[in-house]
Amino acid sequence: MIIKKKNTWFKMLFEWRGSVLPQLLPRLLLLLLFSFIVVYFKPWLLQYNLHINPAIFTLFGIALAIFLGFRNSVSYDRFWEGRKLWGALLNDTRSLARQSITLVPDKEYDAKREKFTNLLIAFVYSLKHQLRETNSDADMSRLLPKEFAGQLKETRYKPILLLRELGLWVKDAKTENKIDSVTQLAFEENLNKLSDIVGGCERIAGTPIPYTYSVLLHRTVYIYCFLLSFGFVETMGWITPFIIVFIAYTFVALEAIADELENPFGVQPNDLALDAMSEMIENTLLELNDKKINPVTHHNNYFIT
Amino acid sequence: MIIKKKNTWFKMLFEWRGSVLPQLLPRLLLLLLFSFIVVYFKPWLLQYNLHINPAIFTLFGIALAIFLGFRNSVSYDRFWEGRKLWGALLNDTRSLARQSITLVPDKEYDAKREKFTNLLIAFVYSLKHQLRETNSDADMSRLLPKEFAGQLKETRYKPILLLRELGLWVKDAKTENKIDSVTQLAFEENLNKLSDIVGGCERIAGTPIPYTYSVLLHRTVYIYCFLLSFGFVETMGWITPFIIVFIAYTFVALEAIADELENPFGVQPNDLALDAMSEMIENTLLELNDKKINPVTHHNNYFIT
Amino acid sequence: MIIKKKNTWFKMLFEWRGSVLPQLLPRLLLLLLFSFIVVYFKPWLLQYNLHINPAIFTLFGIALAIFLGFRNSVSYDRFWEGRKLWGALLNDTRSLARQSITLVPDKEYDAKREKFTNLLIAFVYSLKHQLRETNSDADMSRLLPKEFAGQLKETRYKPILLLRELGLWVKDAKTENKIDSVTQLAFEENLNKLSDIVGGCERIAGTPIPYTYSVLLHRTVYIYCFLLSFGFVETMGWITPFIIVFIAYTFVALEAIADELENPFGVQPNDLALDAMSEMIENTLLELNDKKINPVTHHNNYFIT
Amino acid sequence: MIIKKKNTWFKMLFEWRGSVLPQLLPRLLLLLLFSFIVVYFKPWLLQYNLHINPAIFTLFGIALAIFLGFRNSVSYDRFWEGRKLWGALLNDTRSLARQSITLVPDKEYDAKREKFTNLLIAFVYSLKHQLRETNSDADMSRLLPKEFAGQLKETRYKPILLLRELGLWVKDAKTENKIDSVTQLAFEENLNKLSDIVGGCERIAGTPIPYTYSVLLHRTVYIYCFLLSFGFVETMGWITPFIIVFIAYTFVALEAIADELENPFGVQPNDLALDAMSEMIENTLLELNDKKINPVTHHNNYFIT
Amino acid sequence: MIIKKKNTWFKMLFEWRGSVLPQLLPRLLLLLLFSFIVVYFKPWLLQYNLHINPAIFTLFGIALAIFLGFRNSVSYDRFWEGRKLWGALLNDTRSLARQSITLVPDKEYDAKREKFTNLLIAFVYSLKHQLRETNSDADMSRLLPKEFAGQLKETRYKPILLLRELGLWVKDAKTENKIDSVTQLAFEENLNKLSDIVGGCERIAGTPIPYTYSVLLHRTVYIYCFLLSFGFVETMGWITPFIIVFIAYTFVALEAIADELENPFGVQPNDLALDAMSEMIENTLLELNDKKINPVTHHNNYFIT
Repeated sequence: MIIKKKNTWFKMLFEWRGSVLPQLLPRLLLLLLFSFIVVYFKPWLLQYNLHINPAIFTLFGIALAIFLGFRNSVSYDRFWEGRKLWGALLNDTRSLARQSITLVPDKEYDAKREKFTNLLIAFVYSLKHQLRETNSDADMSRLLPKEFAGQLKETRYKPILLLRELGLWVKDAKTENKIDSVTQLAFEENLNKLSDIVGGCERIAGTPIPYTYSVLLHRTVYIYCFLLSFGFVETMGWITPFIIVFIAYTFVALEAIADELENPFGVQPNDLALDAMSEMIENTLLELNDKKINPVTHHNNYFIT
Repeated sequence: MIIKKKNTWFKMLFEWRGSVLPQLLPRLLLLLLFSFIVVYFKPWLLQYNLHINPAIFTLFGIALAIFLGFRNSVSYDRFWEGRKLWGALLNDTRSLARQSITLVPDKEYDAKREKFTNLLIAFVYSLKHQLRETNSDADMSRLLPKEFAGQLKETRYKPILLLRELGLWVKDAKTENKIDSVTQLAFEENLNKLSDIVGGCERIAGTPIPYTYSVLLHRTVYIYCFLLSFGFVETMGWITPFIIVFIAYTFVALEAIADELENPFGVQPNDLALDAMSEMIENTLLELNDKKINPVTHHNNYFIT
Repeated sequence: MIIKKKNTWFKMLFEWRGSVLPQLLPRLLLLLLFSFIVVYFKPWLLQYNLHINPAIFTLFGIALAIFLGFRNSVSYDRFWEGRKLWGALLNDTRSLARQSITLVPDKEYDAKREKFTNLLIAFVYSLKHQLRETNSDADMSRLLPKEFAGQLKETRYKPILLLRELGLWVKDAKTENKIDSVTQLAFEENLNKLSDIVGGCERIAGTPIPYTYSVLLHRTVYIYCFLLSFGFVETMGWITPFIIVFIAYTFVALEAIADELENPFGVQPNDLALDAMSEMIENTLLELNDKKINPVTHHNNYFIT
Repeated sequence: MIIKKKNTWFKMLFEWRGSVLPQLLPRLLLLLLFSFIVVYFKPWLLQYNLHINPAIFTLFGIALAIFLGFRNSVSYDRFWEGRKLWGALLNDTRSLARQSITLVPDKEYDAKREKFTNLLIAFVYSLKHQLRETNSDADMSRLLPKEFAGQLKETRYKPILLLRELGLWVKDAKTENKIDSVTQLAFEENLNKLSDIVGGCERIAGTPIPYTYSVLLHRTVYIYCFLLSFGFVETMGWITPFIIVFIAYTFVALEAIADELENPFGVQPNDLALDAMSEMIENTLLELNDKKINPVTHHNNYFIT
Repeated sequence: MIIKKKNTWFKMLFEWRGSVLPQLLPRLLLLLLFSFIVVYFKPWLLQYNLHINPAIFTLFGIALAIFLGFRNSVSYDRFWEGRKLWGALLNDTRSLARQSITLVPDKEYDAKREKFTNLLIAFVYSLKHQLRETNSDADMSRLLPKEFAGQLKETRYKPILLLRELGLWVKDAKTENKIDSVTQLAFEENLNKLSDIVGGCERIAGTPIPYTYSVLLHRTVYIYCFLLSFGFVETMGWITPFIIVFIAYTFVALEAIADELENPFGVQPNDLALDAMSEMIENTLLELNDKKINPVTHHNNYFIT
C-alpha cells in the first residue's frame, strides 16, 4: 500500500495507515504492564540489591541503535533493489515493445506483434506469481494461446520459458528475413536484461538476511526493552512505564519495519505494489501498440500520470 | 532554487534563502511556549514526582540521531539519483542529436534532423510535466506538428510515445537507405537509455520511502522534542526553553529537509530545478544544430557556463 | 542453511537454528564465571583502589559499536556480493542456454546443444568446487566426455578451461556457417560475463578483510567484555554478571557472524547454499532444453518455486 | 595541491600544508576569547541561574557528529565522483587515440590523426575551463585550426561542439571508405562516454548539496561551539577554553573540509588538480602518437610515473 | 601478506602476524609513561584546579569514533576498489586470451597467439611496476622482443603503449583477413576495459584522501589520547594508564590501518599482493595456451586453487 498525499505535520503524528503499530500493540501493552509491576515492587528490588546502573543502558542502547541502523539500512537496500528491478522490468519491456514496432516495421506483422506484446505481459505476470508463490494459470490463460498456457502449467521456471518463447519469436522474424542478425542482437540484449531481472528478483526473494542476524537483533531488542524498567525505576517515578514504552515503540517498530521490508515482494502493507505495477506495465505496452488501456483495478494514483 | 555564491562563514549563520525555518517557526514557537510552561510549573512537577532521568534522553536522543541519519542518507540518495537521471537525460539527448548529425550526414536531411531535435526536446518537457503532474499541452504544441500534438493529448504515457516516434524516425532513415542496421543499433542503444531514464524517474516519483518509516520518525522526533523539557527542567534554569528549542530546531529541520528531498521532482525550494534544466537541454540541442539559443527565463547561473 | 518461515515474535526469541550461540556458549560461561569472581572480590578491589569510571566504558563501548558496525557492514557486503555473483551465474548460463536455442536454431544441432548445456553445468560445478577446494572429479565425469574430464583433472583453473571450451563450441558453429560473426559476438559477451564471475568469486574467496582489522576488533571486543565487570561492579549488585553476559553476547555474536559472512563460500551455517544453487541452475538449464528435471537432494524451498 | 610523501606520525601532528587551519584561526581565537569571558563571569552566571546540564551537550554533540559524518560522507563522494569522471576522461581519450591508430591504420592518415588527437586534447582543456569558468581562448587557439577556434569563441557549450567535431572526423573516415559502420560504432561508443563525462562534471559543478543542509549544519556547529563554554564552565576550571577550542577545531575543520570538497573542481587547496591532470592527458596522448612529451609545468609527482 | 587460516578465538587474541602493533608500540609506551606521570602528579593537578569533566571526553571520543569510522570506510573502499581493478585485470586478460584462441582459430596463428599472450602478461607486469614505481626492465626483456623492450625503456606510460601494441596485433589479424570488423570490435571492447583499469589504478595511486582529512584525524586522535589521562585521573586510581593505553591502542591502530589501506598498491603488510597476483595471471594465461605453468615463487595459498 503506497500512500502519497501526506498530512500536515500535526495530523501526521496520528497517522494510522500502513502502520506497524496495530501488530505491535499487544507486545507494548505487555511491556507497559511489566513496567508497572517493576515500579510497584521498587522497594522490594532495592531491598534485594537488584539495581542496575543507567549508564550501562545508555551504552548498550546506543550500541543497539547502531546495529539496528545497520539492519534497517540493509533491509531498505533490499526493498529498493527490488523496486529497481521492477523499474527495469518496466523499462525493458517498453524497449522491447518499441523495438518490435520500429525494428520489424512490416504492416503485415501486426498480428505477430500483438502476440509478442502478450508474451511480454505474460512474462511480467508470471514473474509476479512466482515471487509471491501464487497461481499464475488464470493470467496465463488470458494472455497466451491455450496450448502453450497448458504446457506452461507443468513447468517450474515459467518466466524463463517465456523468455525462450520471446527469443524464438525473434528467431522466426530472422528466418523470415524481416530482420538481420544485427537487429536480432538488439533484441537479444534486452532479453538478456530480462533474464538478469528474473534472477535478481529470485535472489532477493530466495536469500534473506542471514537468519542469525535477524534473530540476534530481535532477541536483543526485546530483552533490552524489558530490562529498561530495572535501569530507570530508581531515578524516575510513576512516569517510568510511559517513557519506556515510548522508547520501546521506536526500537521494536524499526525492527518490525526492517523485517517487513526485507522481502519486498510479499503482501504486507509496506511491500511493493506488484499488482499495480503489473497492471501499469500491461497498460503502457497496450498503449504503445495503440490498443485500449484497461481500466485500473488497483487504485494507485502513482502510476496514473 | 539553487544558490551558488556562498556567504562568509559569519553571514551564513543568518542565511535565510531556501531555508525550511519559516515553515518550522510556528511549531518551534509552540515548543518554546510549552517549555516555558514546564519551567513555570517545575515545583508542581517535583511535588507529583514527575521527573525524568536525563540519561534516558541522552540515550534516546542519540538513537534518534542515528535513525535520522539513516533517513537523511536515504532521502539524499533519492535526490541525487533523480539528479543523475536528469544528467543522463542531458547526456543522451546530446548524444542522439550528435548522432543525427554525424551518422545521417546527408545535407538534404537538415529538415528531418530539425524534426528529430524537436522530438527530443518535446520528450524532455513531457517527462518534466509527467513528473510534476502539470499540463504539457502548451509545450507539445510549440514543439510538435499540430496533428501529433493533438493525438498525444489523449494519451497517458506521453514520453514513451515520443520515444516510439524517435524510433520510427530512425526506422524511416533506414528504409530510405540512409543508414544500415548497424547504425540503427547505435541509435537504439541511446533510445533504450532514454527508456531507462523515464522509468527511473517514475520509480522515484512513484515509490516514496515506506510511509511507516516517515511517520515513525516524524512522530518520534516531535514527541521527543516536547518531552525534552521534562528531562532537563530540574537541572537547568530559565535557559532551558532556549536550549531545547535550539536542539529541536536541528532535529525537526533535518526531518523537514529529508521530507523535501524525498521527492526531488517537486516544486519546493530544495527540489531539483527541472525548469532550468529543461531549458538548458533545449539550448544545448539547438546549439548543436547551429540554431539560435533561446534567452534563459529561469535565472540559474549554474547552467550558463 | 537458509531458513524461510519465521516464527512469531515470541518464539523467535528462543530460535536456535543457524545460531552462533552454541559456538559462543563456552566463552560466555567463562565470562560469567569471571564476572562472579569480580563481584565476590569487590571489597578487595575497593581496598586496592582498583575501580574504573563507568563513563570510560560508555565512551569505549559506543566507539566499539561503531567499529563493529563498520566490520559488519563490510562482511555483509562481501556476503551479498558473493550472492550477486552466483545470481549473475544463474542469469548468464540461462541466457547462454537460451541463445544456443534461438541463435543456432538448426534441428540437427540438438545433440551439440546438449553438449553445450552440459559444459555450462560443468562450469557451474567446477566453480563451486574451486571455491570450496573440494574435488570436482565426480561431477566432471558425470557431465563431460570421458577424455576431456581426464584432461581437466591435471589443470589448475578448471572453470577457465571450460570457458575456452564453450568458446570453441561457438567457433565451431561459426566454422560450420550456422552463425555469422555478429551472432558469435552475442555469445562472446555472455562468455566475458562468465569470466568476470569466476574472477569475482576468486577475489572474494582469495582476499579476506585485511587480517589486522579482524584481529584488532576481535581482541578489543573480548578484552572489553572482560573489563566490563570492573567498570560496573561498584554500582550494580549481584545482577552484574548477568547483565554483562547479555551485553557481551550481542558484541561477540556480531563479531562471530561477521567472521562467518566474510567468506560466503564456506560451509558454515550462515554461508551461501552453493550446493542448492548449483542444483537449481542445473535444473533450470535442463528445463530450458525440455529435459526432465533432477529430483532435488538439497531441500531448500527457496529455489523450488 | 596533492601531497604524497607523508611525515612520521610525530611530524604529521604539526603538518601545515593544505590545512584549513589558517582560514579557521581567527574564528577559533574569537571562540577562545569568548570562552575566557565566560570563565571570568562564572560567579555571575551561577548567580543568575544560567547553568546548563553537560548531559544535553553530550547528547547534542554526538547527534551533531552523526550529521556531520553524513555531510562529510556526501562531500567526499562528490569529490571522488569528480575524480572518477576525470579518470574516465583519461581512459576514454586514450582509448579513442588508440582506436584512431589501430582502426584507421592508413599511413597517409597520419596528419588527420594528429588533428583528431588535438581535438581530444582541446576537448579536455575546454572542459576544464568550463568547470572553472575561466577563459579557454588561449588553449583553443594553441590546439585548433584558427577558424574553428574563432567559431568556438561565441558558443556556450564548447566541449559538446568539440564532440560533434570528433564525430564528424569519424564520419569523414567512413565517407572516405577507410572504415565501415561497425568500426564507426566503436568510435561512437567512446564518444557517448565522453558526452556522459561532460554531463557528469556539469552535474557536480551545477548542483551543490541542498543549500539548507549546508546552512543548517554550519549554523548548528558554530552555535554549538559557542554554547559549549556554558555547559562545562561549572565543572572545569581555567582549562575550559583550551579544551573547548580543541573540540571546536575538529568540528569546524570537518565542516570546512566538507565545504571545500563539495565542489571538487574549484581552486582551493584540497580540490582536484585539474591543471596537472589536463597536462598529463595531453602528454599521454602525444606519446601514443610518438610525439615529444611536453615538459611538465605543474609539478605534481603523482602523474609522472 | 595475506593470512588465510585463522586461529581459534583464543589464540587470535595473541595474533602478531601482519599487525600494526610493532610500529605503534613506542608511541603507546610513551603514552603509558605520560599517563603515569599524570597519575603521580594528581594532587598537584587538583591543587591548580586543572581537572576536566569526563563527560566532555565521552562526547568527543564518540564524535571521534564516528569520524574515524568514516575514515576507515573510505580507506577500505579504496583498498577494495584497487582489488576489484586487479580482479578485472585478471578477468579481461583471460577473456582476451580466450578470444585470441576462439576468434582467430587458424592453426598457423599459434606463434602469433603466443606473442599476444606475452604482450598481455607484459601489460600486467608493467602496470605493477608503474604503480609501485619500480623498474620494469627485467620483466619487459623477459616477455617482449628485444627491440620493442628497448623502445619501451624510454617511455613514460608503458601499459598504454602495450595496449596500442595489442590493438595493432588485432589490426594485423584484420589486415590479413583472419577476422572481420565485427570480431575486431569484440577485441576492442576488452582493450577499452584494460584502458579503464590502468586509469583506475592510476587514480587510486595518484589521488589520496585529501591530506587535510588525514592530518586532522591523525592530530585529533593523538591529542585526544594524551588528554584522556587528565579526564579520568580523578575518578580512577593507578589502573588509569592501562585502561587509557588500551583505548588508545584501538583508536591509533584503526588510524594506522586506514593509513596503510589508503594506498593499496604499496608494499606494507596489509597492502595488495600484487606480486602473487601478477604471477597468478601469468600462470592462468599460460595454461589457457596449453603451456607449462611456472612454479610459484610468492607463496600465497589463495591463488593456488
